[in-house]
Amino acid sequence: MKLVTIEWKNNGIRIIDQTKLPAKLVFLQIKSLKQLWQAIKLLKVRGAPALGAAGALGVYLGVKDLKPRNAEEFKILFEKACRYIGSSRPTARNLFWGIERMRKVFLDNKAKEARKIKQALFAETKLIVSLDMASCRSIGLHGSRLIKNNDTILTICNTGILATIDYGTAAGVIYRSHEDGKRIKVYACETRPLLQGARLTTWELKRKGIDVTLICDNMAATLMKQGKISKVIAGADRIAANGDAANKIGTYNLAVLSRYHNIPFYIAAPASTFDLSIPCGRHIPIEQRAGSEVTDLFFKHPVAAKGVKVFNPAFDVTDSGLITAIITDKGVIRPPYKKNIRRKIGR
Amino acid sequence: MKLVTIEWKNNGIRIIDQTKLPAKLVFLQIKSLKQLWQAIKLLKVRGAPALGAAGALGVYLGVKDLKPRNAEEFKILFEKACRYIGSSRPTARNLFWGIERMRKVFLDNKAKEARKIKQALFAETKLIVSLDMASCRSIGLHGSRLIKNNDTILTICNTGILATIDYGTAAGVIYRSHEDGKRIKVYACETRPLLQGARLTTWELKRKGIDVTLICDNMAATLMKQGKISKVIAGADRIAANGDAANKIGTYNLAVLSRYHNIPFYIAAPASTFDLSIPCGRHIPIEQRAGSEVTDLFFKHPVAAKGVKVFNPAFDVTDSGLITAIITDKGVIRPPYKKNIRRKIGR
Repeated sequence: MKLVTIEWKNNGIRIIDQTKLPAKLVFLQIKSLKQLWQAIKLLKVRGAPALGAAGALGVYLGVKDLKPRNAEEFKILFEKACRYIGSSRPTARNLFWGIERMRKVFLDNKAKEARKIKQALFAETKLIVSLDMASCRSIGLHGSRLIKNNDTILTICNTGILATIDYGTAAGVIYRSHEDGKRIKVYACETRPLLQGARLTTWELKRKGIDVTLICDNMAATLMKQGKISKVIAGADRIAANGDAANKIGTYNLAVLSRYHNIPFYIAAPASTFDLSIPCGRHIPIEQRAGSEVTDLFFKHPVAAKGVKVFNPAFDVTDSGLITAIITDKGVIRPPYKKNIRRKIGR
Repeated sequence: MKLVTIEWKNNGIRIIDQTKLPAKLVFLQIKSLKQLWQAIKLLKVRGAPALGAAGALGVYLGVKDLKPRNAEEFKILFEKACRYIGSSRPTARNLFWGIERMRKVFLDNKAKEARKIKQALFAETKLIVSLDMASCRSIGLHGSRLIKNNDTILTICNTGILATIDYGTAAGVIYRSHEDGKRIKVYACETRPLLQGARLTTWELKRKGIDVTLICDNMAATLMKQGKISKVIAGADRIAANGDAANKIGTYNLAVLSRYHNIPFYIAAPASTFDLSIPCGRHIPIEQRAGSEVTDLFFKHPVAAKGVKVFNPAFDVTDSGLITAIITDKGVIRPPYKKNIRRKIGR
């Protein structure tokens, strides 16, 4: 069965409920903006590129049944939907990218009647979904040229099918290398606290027949010291103009370890993850999540002293100086990043 | 209530069952060598110094009711008990140190009648327990001199009361600094897979009124980057003649991160943790544990793809070049380690 993480179906948004994996593959039909907001907040749908589609589809879901009395009211309600869906998670650039594309379509068509505007918005969601599918394949192609036969790749979080529409960014590089017949091994960091690596990545990679071994996040250094890792590839949630990259907490850790052990460290992300309005990583908003994600193991079983304080940032920022190259759908970007990002990604 | 991790009581060994913490403080009465072996294997009692006492008490438990027909038979049965208890966990030097001390007492007294030998062995267990209590306090004293007012200390695993008889090694340094009235903050790495940091360290430190914040292991790099960590202190399970130190998996990770961020990285351990017969860390046996510890979250809830391969070493080795100083009961040892370890610890 071909997996599609998020799509428009039955007059609503259908997602794979990722909190149910790997135990069960459950689809969730989303019928309201509030339901989508909660699904994003609870990570039922997650992954920066998938959130780009979720943002766009969410905006459409939020306006499709509106019967505004006039253009002004439509605009107010449209903006309200955009703001609401944008308030679900602060870090992933793609969410805002998806919303902004919808806003541009709205404004470009604002003179038209509401029905026509809605049609244009719906067409844009289709385009965004297609763009994601194409850009992942392009990332896979460009990235796979960096991968050699017998490479062992370390990765973190989930950057595959479940983080995009149907292919992946960092995992897309792995998939393409595998499809090309390269013999590769993958180590997946479990990715505490919410274990996207353990729950989602091992499930996806095994499903595709890729040799994957699960580790706890704190075991990566030992593998590197033992010479077992050829390359590290991570995704990104937002990349600043200078190449600093926010990604799942633990990514910066791997980047420092890679530098110490002289291992190439790559970030893989589509152009939509870049935020050229932000000069460097310091300005990327980092989502802080509930301490119970850490203390109540996978939402169930308390494992820390009652009432203990918890530090639980969902992301960290990797300085571009630690990144060997950024693999994008527009090609592989190498230092100097500021210049080369502007050239490849900037308008 | 004063906590004692392991002691001789009611004609057997009484331990705190650490797998029940932090939910419940449960004591477990151990009546057979097999029961102790399993308690060690399942980490009901753990922590290198506590295992030193467990080894010694275990040997006594194994021979106290023997009625050997002659000295030779006694020696054979004694050696069998030593080997059996030594087979429970391979890495912690202290376990073997405890057993070897008992063996020396046995050999020194072998000409005596069995009852006298047993008395000497029992006296030795008392001495070993007292030595641990004293050496932890000495580590705390020496180490606390390195801690300044307002320091924020990052630590990993559990190195406190529960890892020793009643005080701690790395946590002993924290306790002593706190007792001396220094204002300190502690960040505790949760320490996957078995969460000794989350379950045991936050519980102990909160109980002592110390300001502790729990983090996932992969969040340490971010804290360091933000300038929030003044010092890192970890324990050790075995230290080679050149200062390379095996400790809970994730320690080497912290050592590399500390070096990158220019943060002092200390190991705290008693003399009994040193193994001068081993020239460097490469020769330290590293225990590999079941993958289910990683996939079945805290033994209960499966969170990874069914049948996924898992890499689960219980320890890693930190190169002495990454260690700022080793805090021991004999004083603080600084580089050059080979020479200074021989001088302070060697006989």
